[in-house]
Amino acid sequence: MSKQETAVAHAAEQWWKTAIIDIKPGQIHVRGYPIEHLIGELSYAQMVWLMVRGEVPGAEQAALLEAALVAAVDHGPQAPSIAIARMSVTCGVDINNAMASAVNVLGDVHGGAGQQCMELYRAVVDEAEPSPGQARSVEDAARSVIDHYQASVSKIVPGFGHRFHHRDPRSVRLLAMLETARASGVIAGRYLDAARAVEADLERRKRKSLPMNIDGATAAIYCELGFPPVLGRGLFILSRSVGILAHAYEQSQFGERIKGPMPPSIPYTYTGKRKLDYRGD
Amino acid sequence: MSKQETAVAHAAEQWWKTAIIDIKPGQIHVRGYPIEHLIGELSYAQMVWLMVRGEVPGAEQAALLEAALVAAVDHGPQAPSIAIARMSVTCGVDINNAMASAVNVLGDVHGGAGQQCMELYRAVVDEAEPSPGQARSVEDAARSVIDHYQASVSKIVPGFGHRFHHRDPRSVRLLAMLETARASGVIAGRYLDAARAVEADLERRKRKSLPMNIDGATAAIYCELGFPPVLGRGLFILSRSVGILAHAYEQSQFGERIKGPMPPSIPYTYTGKRKLDYRGD
Amino acid sequence: MSKQETAVAHAAEQWWKTAIIDIKPGQIHVRGYPIEHLIGELSYAQMVWLMVRGEVPGAEQAALLEAALVAAVDHGPQAPSIAIARMSVTCGVDINNAMASAVNVLGDVHGGAGQQCMELYRAVVDEAEPSPGQARSVEDAARSVIDHYQASVSKIVPGFGHRFHHRDPRSVRLLAMLETARASGVIAGRYLDAARAVEADLERRKRKSLPMNIDGATAAIYCELGFPPVLGRGLFILSRSVGILAHAYEQSQFGERIKGPMPPSIPYTYTGKRKLDYRGD
Amino acid sequence: MSKQETAVAHAAEQWWKTAIIDIKPGQIHVRGYPIEHLIGELSYAQMVWLMVRGEVPGAEQAALLEAALVAAVDHGPQAPSIAIARMSVTCGVDINNAMASAVNVLGDVHGGAGQQCMELYRAVVDEAEPSPGQARSVEDAARSVIDHYQASVSKIVPGFGHRFHHRDPRSVRLLAMLETARASGVIAGRYLDAARAVEADLERRKRKSLPMNIDGATAAIYCELGFPPVLGRGLFILSRSVGILAHAYEQSQFGERIKGPMPPSIPYTYTGKRKLDYRGD
Repeated sequence: MSKQETAVAHAAEQWWKTAIIDIKPGQIHVRGYPIEHLIGELSYAQMVWLMVRGEVPGAEQAALLEAALVAAVDHGPQAPSIAIARMSVTCGVDINNAMASAVNVLGDVHGGAGQQCMELYRAVVDEAEPSPGQARSVEDAARSVIDHYQASVSKIVPGFGHRFHHRDPRSVRLLAMLETARASGVIAGRYLDAARAVEADLERRKRKSLPMNIDGATAAIYCELGFPPVLGRGLFILSRSVGILAHAYEQSQFGERIKGPMPPSIPYTYTGKRKLDYRGD
Repeated sequence: MSKQETAVAHAAEQWWKTAIIDIKPGQIHVRGYPIEHLIGELSYAQMVWLMVRGEVPGAEQAALLEAALVAAVDHGPQAPSIAIARMSVTCGVDINNAMASAVNVLGDVHGGAGQQCMELYRAVVDEAEPSPGQARSVEDAARSVIDHYQASVSKIVPGFGHRFHHRDPRSVRLLAMLETARASGVIAGRYLDAARAVEADLERRKRKSLPMNIDGATAAIYCELGFPPVLGRGLFILSRSVGILAHAYEQSQFGERIKGPMPPSIPYTYTGKRKLDYRGD
Repeated sequence: MSKQETAVAHAAEQWWKTAIIDIKPGQIHVRGYPIEHLIGELSYAQMVWLMVRGEVPGAEQAALLEAALVAAVDHGPQAPSIAIARMSVTCGVDINNAMASAVNVLGDVHGGAGQQCMELYRAVVDEAEPSPGQARSVEDAARSVIDHYQASVSKIVPGFGHRFHHRDPRSVRLLAMLETARASGVIAGRYLDAARAVEADLERRKRKSLPMNIDGATAAIYCELGFPPVLGRGLFILSRSVGILAHAYEQSQFGERIKGPMPPSIPYTYTGKRKLDYRGD
Repeated sequence: MSKQETAVAHAAEQWWKTAIIDIKPGQIHVRGYPIEHLIGELSYAQMVWLMVRGEVPGAEQAALLEAALVAAVDHGPQAPSIAIARMSVTCGVDINNAMASAVNVLGDVHGGAGQQCMELYRAVVDEAEPSPGQARSVEDAARSVIDHYQASVSKIVPGFGHRFHHRDPRSVRLLAMLETARASGVIAGRYLDAARAVEADLERRKRKSLPMNIDGATAAIYCELGFPPVLGRGLFILSRSVGILAHAYEQSQFGERIKGPMPPSIPYTYTGKRKLDYRGD
């Protein structure tokens, strides 16, 4: 190597580093834990948490994360990510490729509402606690943050209202879980208050019901659990990847080639309704 | 629309269909279940299973799936998928894009060993039970399947041996869990037997130890749980997506721009060792 | 670095190499040429050829490559690659991301017909010249190759027939150019003969017209020019990337958010017909 | 379809439209031209222009575009896009997938400098011609635009200086072509003047030479030719896709599996120097 190349190589050594994982022959440490102590011990959702944040969450926190991850797996084959996964499969690419093209479109518009909503809730909480002894009501804070958001970013506030559902059954359930978690002291509830305040303020402005959607509800959970906003998008991607895989796999079983885009409505072929019976819900 | 276009449109309506999800205003049904009955009730791993296969697994089955998903999240930043995720972040793309480029390379070589290994185990089990009253020993079946594989596909049998680890701590743990599951009747153990027989046969041929690696061990789990091989790759992708997200996020926190490729070794910056203490492991 | 890591690092040094480009401070050599001698001198199509094959083609060869690249840029927004590019843009991702998701689906089915057809023509030419003094007619060779293809690969032979066009205007033009090139000695014409023989044989079997499509015609050009089949797909990707960019850019100008899949027919908004007037075509 | 679904379907019909291409059985019109009139008539670079902008450029304009496209095809295998393409191939994915993962990282940092630089030049030209009768010198305008850019965006101005080359041979050649084009009236030269003024101003600030790099030079060309900035990135992607294909193909010929990241320096295996001889350059 030339002197310049050696310097570049040396810089590279310093440049890349990680606190996530350490591999030596016969040994794998993840965030300080031997991996064999984690396998069979942590749930998949706890492992997600440990990997991205470095700590193992308690069971109650993990349950909230789990609920949010379960809620967002799929919203039908007309969502561009799912449509792209299915179309990709009919083009003859492998399942990893179909999933990649689908995950790739979970950008600011399709995958970013949760992240944006988390930033909004955090702004409301920050605004409501500006300095010691000068607390504002969360309602005032929400009004001021929304004023600013609508003036400088967009009239459409992420996390509220849905073009398809009036009341999204996922949000209703997630909010009920958040209230239970607050009642039992699992979460402090400040971001939940912020979310409720934003919802109330938007409905006052619009003079109509504009209920929290799935992005608004999962944003409240992720904020309460202490995730930074960019991980809100990351967690949504992990969750939606499940739906992407399921649709890509189902499509691959049909064995058809190179379909054009989907029609605006496609048939649902499962017939019957079912009820989970192992915990009398 | 012209007559031809109408025909194409009509065909498209018939062409796309799904048994996974049905969305109506105010209602989301997943595999026949209202989604609000699943949220807070199913673990994330159970939801993965329901989405891809249509049924809710029992708790013991789900625990094995969970273990396999936890085990494969990451094998260090030198793996091409993780390296690509980190390099992508330094190019200024969003986290969904970095994850997409990484997932995209989980092809036959980097992501396919588990899938190929599942096909091998299934061939061994099929061979060992060719017809009623004519069972062969699983050892014979393994020998014959490996003969065929090495003659027609490749000398390197997927799922065994590792260029870095002699004995992979993940496989050791997963195999112990499989044995426990067999002992308690959770799994039948035929694929586990097949895996052991392949390992023994390969070691006999090589005249050296060639222990089952992570792909070989998760393949045994996924076969025992009844997943088809292509979903073996799908489940690996979901699992590795966690590591991809963690590394992409960590890299984004460093805030550096457009790095060249990683050096062959990179420093691990977590110091100390930890032990999980909430269940006397 | 440990001894093992040093060995890995050393192997990596040996492992990666290139004959394409050499960069030193103030100097860029491409395939042995200083880049500043190529800029302004080679056409873009000649540069493609130099980059992938290492030699600068003559002007007549380059003209055929150019024609093939021009012909395949776009076949309408209903093609999955273009549909995906447009849908991706409405999801708020950048133009490089939209292009990536689109290019990603140019797999065996959507992007591979040209490559497969090149392999077929090469098989016909090889079959027609099995050994010195034992030449078979190209018609015999085509029949035998198609027999084999239909028996062992697929009944549908790539490169012939089109579900939409009876006679594809692109193929007609490209074939005329190939005939002119043969007449003037630019190409030898063996692959063109093979292509004609395959077409005739298929029409004989089907008892109806089944004209060469764009994949069949570009495959003949790429074979005549000496490209290996895998580069047939590569050249198609470069060509179709132009259409992908054009559609992604057009969509971005509309500024709409998160559209669902396209309908089976979409309006063409350019009105009028035009004629190139600078060479009385 | 329900009433709501019908409305969605109807909206979709109105929603998607294109002025790029119209396909009918036996007929393909591109921007108003029958495609068979374009094949063999337009160069690949002219077709790029027609597709993205709707008009056929003159030969002199096309020559400048061609030079810019040729110049940016490759800057070595250490660039993340090329490294990713090569690594992807060793993971066993197809060439379209390797190209997709590579194109995907041509984001703001790796692929966006040209686009950002075009915006800068346009700001300078706008500033220099604020209103009739009130022209400012381009030097004044450049100073003011850079003041603003460094205060509000970044200290590092895109398009100038290079961490590797002091003087980039590509820029030198492209600038010479721009001067020739101005002398012969092919371009007006206002953006070239802006580029020179920015360079001079930056060198005055830095008190050292900070020559225009490839992004700065191609940005000047694309501005002079009337491309909007976002197409600057698009054209760079088309150009770099050639290098990505060449490296992916070369790597595929080596047949190696799943390599880790590249070392900081890799050997160039072409030996010898060459000179183009067909136009005494």
